[in-house]
Amino acid sequence: MNCSLAQTLEVVGERWTMLILRDAFFGIRRFEEFQRRLGIARNILSARLSHLVNEEILERHSVSPGGKWAEYRLTAKGKALQPALLALVQWGDYWYPNEDGLRVEFFDRRSDDPILPIRAYSQEGEALEPRDIGARPGPGGPKNIVAKK
Amino acid sequence: MNCSLAQTLEVVGERWTMLILRDAFFGIRRFEEFQRRLGIARNILSARLSHLVNEEILERHSVSPGGKWAEYRLTAKGKALQPALLALVQWGDYWYPNEDGLRVEFFDRRSDDPILPIRAYSQEGEALEPRDIGARPGPGGPKNIVAKK
Repeated sequence: MNCSLAQTLEVVGERWTMLILRDAFFGIRRFEEFQRRLGIARNILSARLSHLVNEEILERHSVSPGGKWAEYRLTAKGKALQPALLALVQWGDYWYPNEDGLRVEFFDRRSDDPILPIRAYSQEGEALEPRDIGARPGPGGPKNIVAKK
Repeated sequence: MNCSLAQTLEVVGERWTMLILRDAFFGIRRFEEFQRRLGIARNILSARLSHLVNEEILERHSVSPGGKWAEYRLTAKGKALQPALLALVQWGDYWYPNEDGLRVEFFDRRSDDPILPIRAYSQEGEALEPRDIGARPGPGGPKNIVAKK
């Protein structure tokens, strides 16, 4: 399917894959830590980490002489998923609120202030409502996209 | 799992569900149109649409007297998924480029200009790099989140 979303979901659309990425953004780097936090079966975790390494979203680094310890670090391609992940987390936090309040707060490490909600902006920096945003085929696009009413 | 992302993926983490939502943002509203565009089996489409209606992401409206024709329209909760979907599409377009160029271009319907890439911003409106963004437990959060290094 000539579609970026279908393509993206092939790579990161799987539930464990997204949760591993979330933890990678939280600074988790080692197999044992992912395993403990996620409570995921070791063979599944191993398969998902390999998949993310093959897709160049994580990079495996040996951090002990014999290669016994390895760290999985986000690549630039992996880091580029952060806005999508943040948007999904924020959506869940807003629409399925926990009675105790926000579960995770994302903050600007330089100022310590919470970041703004992820949303679309115009070239002029105005926040756009869903109705303001249209979609049209680009040069490499399918011809059957209709403009949003 | 006390996690907004896990919760979110329960609701919208399924591939067809996301592709249906993408088409809903493109203005698609009718069963037959979704079916034709996605090439999805009718029973699966029917199940996914019901799921999205149950989750109050789409609303079903009868648009003919006998209720034969129905439209599925995005609710406010559904529309709120747009930043996440845009971010996923943009990521796919950037990292899996089509040789002919951009597949879909999202534009500001008022100015006709492309929208900015979806990304995180500080309260002051500065674009944030992944390394600038930390995560900490909110009042309703788990206690095992570590700050991103």
